[in-house]
Amino acid sequence: MTIDLILPDPEDPRLSRAVEGVDENGQGKSIRVIEERPLTIYLNSQEIVTAMTIGDHPEYLALGFLLNQGMLKKSDQITGIDFDEELEVVVVRTAGVTDVEDKLEKKTRTSGCAVGTVFGDMMAGLEGLTLPDTPVHTSTFYDLSYQINHTPSLYMETGAIHGTALCQGRKVLAYMEDVGRHNAVDKIAGWMYLSGVPAADKVLYTTGRLTSEMVIKTALMGIPTLISRSGFTAWGVDIAQQVGLTLIGRMRGKKFTCLSGQHRLVFDQDLSLVPDEDKKQRRKGAVHD
Amino acid sequence: MTIDLILPDPEDPRLSRAVEGVDENGQGKSIRVIEERPLTIYLNSQEIVTAMTIGDHPEYLALGFLLNQGMLKKSDQITGIDFDEELEVVVVRTAGVTDVEDKLEKKTRTSGCAVGTVFGDMMAGLEGLTLPDTPVHTSTFYDLSYQINHTPSLYMETGAIHGTALCQGRKVLAYMEDVGRHNAVDKIAGWMYLSGVPAADKVLYTTGRLTSEMVIKTALMGIPTLISRSGFTAWGVDIAQQVGLTLIGRMRGKKFTCLSGQHRLVFDQDLSLVPDEDKKQRRKGAVHD
Repeated sequence: MTIDLILPDPEDPRLSRAVEGVDENGQGKSIRVIEERPLTIYLNSQEIVTAMTIGDHPEYLALGFLLNQGMLKKSDQITGIDFDEELEVVVVRTAGVTDVEDKLEKKTRTSGCAVGTVFGDMMAGLEGLTLPDTPVHTSTFYDLSYQINHTPSLYMETGAIHGTALCQGRKVLAYMEDVGRHNAVDKIAGWMYLSGVPAADKVLYTTGRLTSEMVIKTALMGIPTLISRSGFTAWGVDIAQQVGLTLIGRMRGKKFTCLSGQHRLVFDQDLSLVPDEDKKQRRKGAVHD
Repeated sequence: MTIDLILPDPEDPRLSRAVEGVDENGQGKSIRVIEERPLTIYLNSQEIVTAMTIGDHPEYLALGFLLNQGMLKKSDQITGIDFDEELEVVVVRTAGVTDVEDKLEKKTRTSGCAVGTVFGDMMAGLEGLTLPDTPVHTSTFYDLSYQINHTPSLYMETGAIHGTALCQGRKVLAYMEDVGRHNAVDKIAGWMYLSGVPAADKVLYTTGRLTSEMVIKTALMGIPTLISRSGFTAWGVDIAQQVGLTLIGRMRGKKFTCLSGQHRLVFDQDLSLVPDEDKKQRRKGAVHD
């Protein structure tokens, strides 16, 4: 079973570069390192933030970022997304003035920063949010981990990068990576929005830590289950419990821990058939954030 | 040899919490997860940003953040740092109006965000910056790794957290952790500033990836050598080369790769005496970002 969509394309030469250095013996050595570029995101004429990104899909990143920060509502009508490669700027355009711009214009925000109270906007987006009780079969987790860990990608090649996968049952629909774990999730959100991919029957798998921000974004995307190899923060757990999201972390080999939303889990895997974690899954320079 | 200063205190009960969940067998399980709290940082009356932090040293974090973002210059006179635990706000006060506030007041910034062009400010801080050619002996790297990997800390206990250590020769002077890798570095910067610790003869060791932001912060702190277990980004390497910083990554067991500032390295370690990486160094839920 192969993954339909892997972004960035691990073969794309623009995305990593060979650099010369020395090793522990003082001997010359060349390694490939991931590119990282600034991308300034505008919502209409309002500059919002400069994100550091691998730079492969600025449109997905900008759109997903604005959606996941609660700055764009699903009701805002997107009229265009314009990327200027030379200026390293991407503008997301809407039919009307968005709430964020309106508040900034009227200076009803006390923050000096469009993203200064992002936290407030994101939490506001969770009010009244419900997630569907789509069951998830634990047998699928092991299939998904295996595919993600054995598919060539930048993560595997160069380390220093995070990946997030959108999954449905045993299938990985899309796997996206970026320098920051939040960017990878935002790119998936942008792609889902533009491609009209429904969220209710999906699972999000990330190599990143399950922080408050990761949980909030997943919930705002409407995805009921979030899985990671990495650990949790207490607030991430609280928010997951508050919105009823299924939260699974520290998933390695046979083991995992579920700290929220246990009700969706269907334990249908004979664990004696699951190997312990393969040490080869730990790649050179691998990131387990 | 013990580490003088470890923040947060791994014994502090405020910093992690036990949470109940289930494991891969559906059996009840309790694990400790790290706390994560919002902290809104003000520079005088200007709200700057809300950071997610473990919350142990808001004063160090706020001061270090503002210094490392180029918003506070060493020439700005700090008159106070006030933390309000209930509001989760910390205010750094200066004798006069800072450049950042002045620009925001006069709206000479086009960005809607105090940190929107943070990147520009940080890069500006690197202009004309030189770092001293303090030699570093590779033998010390192995001692430092060993100490950091074998000292009880939240990193070791709960995972999902990043650590940064300030080192001098074979000695780890301070080891600080936080939910975000940048917070850990900023806390060290704030502590160095308030404690009057010179930077020229120090080495910074991080569990985090060597991104542009990590390299810029280290250079702005005046520290000539930066080491990580994790990987690099190309821009991080470029900036290191531009400012002449010694940049070492993928340091595990005997191995490391140096992609900048090789001239400081004194190769004085008999590598046959250094063990390969101990698998036990990979902790449950450990983060290698």
